[in-house]
Amino acid sequence: MGASIAIFTAQGELLVVLPEDEIELAGKSSQATLTPYKPADLARLITPVEAITDPLRSIILRLGLRRATIGIQVEPGMQPASYASCTDFRPALFKLMQSVMPDATYIACDQVLEQLKAQKTPTELEQLGKAAEIAATGFGIAANSVRVGRREAEVAADIQAAFQTCPKAAEAQRSYGFIFCMSGPNSACASAAYARTRQRKIEQGDLVMIHANTCADGYWTDITRTYTAGAPDQRKEAMRSAITKASKAALAAVRPGVSAREVDGAARRVMVAHGFGDAFKHSTGHGVGFAAVDANALPRIHPHSPDVLDVGMTFNIEPAAYFDGYGGMRHCDVVAVTRDGASVLTGF
Amino acid sequence: MGASIAIFTAQGELLVVLPEDEIELAGKSSQATLTPYKPADLARLITPVEAITDPLRSIILRLGLRRATIGIQVEPGMQPASYASCTDFRPALFKLMQSVMPDATYIACDQVLEQLKAQKTPTELEQLGKAAEIAATGFGIAANSVRVGRREAEVAADIQAAFQTCPKAAEAQRSYGFIFCMSGPNSACASAAYARTRQRKIEQGDLVMIHANTCADGYWTDITRTYTAGAPDQRKEAMRSAITKASKAALAAVRPGVSAREVDGAARRVMVAHGFGDAFKHSTGHGVGFAAVDANALPRIHPHSPDVLDVGMTFNIEPAAYFDGYGGMRHCDVVAVTRDGASVLTGF
Repeated sequence: MGASIAIFTAQGELLVVLPEDEIELAGKSSQATLTPYKPADLARLITPVEAITDPLRSIILRLGLRRATIGIQVEPGMQPASYASCTDFRPALFKLMQSVMPDATYIACDQVLEQLKAQKTPTELEQLGKAAEIAATGFGIAANSVRVGRREAEVAADIQAAFQTCPKAAEAQRSYGFIFCMSGPNSACASAAYARTRQRKIEQGDLVMIHANTCADGYWTDITRTYTAGAPDQRKEAMRSAITKASKAALAAVRPGVSAREVDGAARRVMVAHGFGDAFKHSTGHGVGFAAVDANALPRIHPHSPDVLDVGMTFNIEPAAYFDGYGGMRHCDVVAVTRDGASVLTGF
Repeated sequence: MGASIAIFTAQGELLVVLPEDEIELAGKSSQATLTPYKPADLARLITPVEAITDPLRSIILRLGLRRATIGIQVEPGMQPASYASCTDFRPALFKLMQSVMPDATYIACDQVLEQLKAQKTPTELEQLGKAAEIAATGFGIAANSVRVGRREAEVAADIQAAFQTCPKAAEAQRSYGFIFCMSGPNSACASAAYARTRQRKIEQGDLVMIHANTCADGYWTDITRTYTAGAPDQRKEAMRSAITKASKAALAAVRPGVSAREVDGAARRVMVAHGFGDAFKHSTGHGVGFAAVDANALPRIHPHSPDVLDVGMTFNIEPAAYFDGYGGMRHCDVVAVTRDGASVLTGF
């Protein structure tokens, strides 16, 4: 629920002060030293900050961090939906830290955290791969679910059900997520920052885009597939051909040391060559793994990105073409950078 | 996606600076004056703060607010899942405001905002009622879906599908939510701060708890029903009888001017009288409407609550009994305070 504080020491220790309700799950998914605290109960009506202050102070004193230099996040970031509702500390976080560590020095650590988040360890890659495999089950039934006359919400519910009931989901402590279906003209709106399922009925010839942001134990996927209701006509064939080639070109460009903007360029050149340059309205991708949707997560696969690819980085490759009033097609995969190039985590 | 700034003036104006992607939806659900800004695009790779600064400064200057007294939130709060991922400004929000309004005076407005959120206007009550009606559709199929041999995730998916495909959902611009199913011993764990669906198969005689936090256009519900797989035995009948009576007692105590702790006491006395005092581990309720789960939302229906009920306040009434290793039963309704007493928004 977010009312936890994690402390990473310069010696590599990880300690987490967390509500006692969450210790079981945290113990199953983390090697951290866990210190539970008692949140509000029937005897006391208190806020998370009031509840966490004393346990946090004890740990700080025990670790000898009273005069330490402390890195904290000061820049905006994307907060994934970790539950229906989650604690936001707002400025109280800094106030809390100053109250338990008045003699510490505080510096911004946004950049180093973003870099660490961009490059996954082998364990993190495995976890993200598992999240992608669970999501794949949902997409397994998508082609059959997309039929003329069905509503977007019905298709999304089918895929949601397949995703959340698959045996693989049992391998995660918590597996959940957001599945969106956008058909016909609605699929053209998917170039916006957010996806949205409506009650529209699928019509013959529609493009039907299925977008998923799913989570398994804190690791998030970002996957899109686009189907056609009925046989695709020439225009849709041309869109699919360009997008497939753009995706392949981007993947072929991925290797350690390559500039992220070269990967964007590889996809974009194909789209331009096929006449879809203007229709490809967004960047080719962005970092994926710890947040569902974050266009600023490293590496940014954008025409003006200064980022350089390195082994273990994970991001999406999402070439697309959108035509207002007609429809949109997007193919979005999650890939990891290996020594030899790109490894596609969503190869289905 | 949360990268918006709302300005409420002392004269009652509401202005929102928001990403241009979101102007269509915002225009449909708000009477605010909307000023769109262009977030990062193919030509510029910028952060939300960089993108919003100039449009925000223009509005501040136009409103003559350079030397104004500005209320901001400084205490922690619960942030509902408004999408798969949402912008968190962190300390950058205050820095942004100081950069565009260096001569303003800043004061904490947490308390006044919490009071305003507690007491809904007639329009807000109508919206929350609509959210509850949509959620009710999901519960309509729950009793049939709960069957021996089915897995919790399957039952949750059934209810999710009924909820998200119902015709009523079409009346909201955005309708989504979290449906949880917890069976047998897992239902006893529902006394924790969070709910969790697993892959466990329902067994004969199990208590099966369905918990929903759903959202329609920003208004959140908090609803629980508990079913029995097969005929309930004497123990479960006793639990249900006590919980039903506790709920009725709490509802009967609701009226303007009554202390929230008296409402808690009304429910708790019934549970104690039936031998379930220790099993009723949490407070009788908390404010509901703008966040899915927020034990600190006013009014807090807690034994030590200083809150006093007033017309338009909305909260849940959730008497429950939990027995580790055996199971839990909870009945959670959303109610509104009217001049005459309690109006149940989830009367199904």
